[in-house]
Amino acid sequence: MECDRKDAKKLLEQQNAKIRERMSKIKHKIAILSGKGGVGKSTVTANLAVGLSLLNKKVGVLDGDIHGPNIPKILGANGEPMVAGDAILPIEVSGIKTISISYLLPDEATPVIWRGPRVSGAIRQFLADVAWGELDYLLIDTPPGTGDVQLTIMQSIPNIDGAIIVTTPDEISLLDVKKSISMCKMLNIPIIGIIENMSGFVCPYCNKEIDIFGKGAGEKIAKELGLRFLGRIPLDAKAREAQEKGKPMVLIDCRAGEAFKEIVNKIVEIVENK
Amino acid sequence: MECDRKDAKKLLEQQNAKIRERMSKIKHKIAILSGKGGVGKSTVTANLAVGLSLLNKKVGVLDGDIHGPNIPKILGANGEPMVAGDAILPIEVSGIKTISISYLLPDEATPVIWRGPRVSGAIRQFLADVAWGELDYLLIDTPPGTGDVQLTIMQSIPNIDGAIIVTTPDEISLLDVKKSISMCKMLNIPIIGIIENMSGFVCPYCNKEIDIFGKGAGEKIAKELGLRFLGRIPLDAKAREAQEKGKPMVLIDCRAGEAFKEIVNKIVEIVENK
Repeated sequence: MECDRKDAKKLLEQQNAKIRERMSKIKHKIAILSGKGGVGKSTVTANLAVGLSLLNKKVGVLDGDIHGPNIPKILGANGEPMVAGDAILPIEVSGIKTISISYLLPDEATPVIWRGPRVSGAIRQFLADVAWGELDYLLIDTPPGTGDVQLTIMQSIPNIDGAIIVTTPDEISLLDVKKSISMCKMLNIPIIGIIENMSGFVCPYCNKEIDIFGKGAGEKIAKELGLRFLGRIPLDAKAREAQEKGKPMVLIDCRAGEAFKEIVNKIVEIVENK
Repeated sequence: MECDRKDAKKLLEQQNAKIRERMSKIKHKIAILSGKGGVGKSTVTANLAVGLSLLNKKVGVLDGDIHGPNIPKILGANGEPMVAGDAILPIEVSGIKTISISYLLPDEATPVIWRGPRVSGAIRQFLADVAWGELDYLLIDTPPGTGDVQLTIMQSIPNIDGAIIVTTPDEISLLDVKKSISMCKMLNIPIIGIIENMSGFVCPYCNKEIDIFGKGAGEKIAKELGLRFLGRIPLDAKAREAQEKGKPMVLIDCRAGEAFKEIVNKIVEIVENK
């Protein structure tokens, strides 16, 4: 048993060394977090990636949601990653390098019925083995919660720039979002700022604005906790429809697209002028 | 080591015996599932519980979302559960017995930064130690995904009646929902039916119906996979607002409330006439 434990420790250290090597070639590493599901973490991650790429940044996206991997669908990416030696080659779409467990599944309906340790193992393998090469930005999408994946990402990536927190404008969402913010503080992960998604909706018939999920809670919590507010993304039925067809809304002439562009500029300013 | 392992096995068997004993007093045990977060699992769970209670059923709700426990807020419940011997007494609100990790946290912002095995341990403790007494229904709310919690619930509860699957009407949500359905099939858990939440929205100014998240995907997937469609819950800004104040929408005179009542009747018919 003693011997097994020594071997395990050695393997872990070897993997850590590989992660350090891979991550040292990436200038900025940002996790997209939210305690709550369905607030649009994957939508935000994908659109920030495309927005950064429009500014000629070299961008990678690691889909850290093993149970609900949606990044490929939102970016319109598919294929099977090639393996060369001990390196996994990411799938490229419009110049953005991506990795997701969904590339490795036989079809969309196949669930990944894994307990925590295997999920963490997959994330660590993505960090150690994916050949990103040199990147300006690696965005890491995460599942809801404050458990295995979030811990593994925060503890495994050296020199992570910080986290972007996504929330919807309603009070119940804020409950869970506060937990993510506390987690970052406990683990000394800087918070780059808060994005409020699904904020306000304009009726396409009468043009009146309706607050379906409320409004302003993201800005309120940012003020309360002394955090930066990066901006709000309006709910936009047309933008969502386009996105379902694999066209990220930042590429479409719409209010949500404009909002994303402004947020991307802010992030670049914050992260690159540290 | 060998000795430790034997002890662990014995403890596990003792806990299983306690779970069997507690669950034998509960007529119907239903898990609320959805691969995706933010589709309204907790909202659906809470409103089904209140709806069943309106039919004079004795109802309990187990909040299985350890990282994002929202059941108490939606039901307007709070307090600290009393412990009597090795039994935890559930917190009662309007006649519904509830347990949630949130009752055990010092405040709303405190995150539960636990890896999978501890999360599963908490769920098993809720199943073994909460003194529900005799119930007609135990509804089990779950977090997003197909991992630890879902596995623990499906493997630990004897004679579970089945799962209710919640989805929103958009295609990306369906991606993850299909994974939950596949998981149930692999583990031989019957699917009671599918509920489509956030389905259609009526503009409060011009009264036109707008499909913010699309419409009909829940019914489509039910047909495709030969599953029962239980109904759709419309998006309703007023109902959501009331709910944020701790008043479940099934108690309010609104379209969402009516929809919940119809769905509750269907569930009773299906489950009690098996």
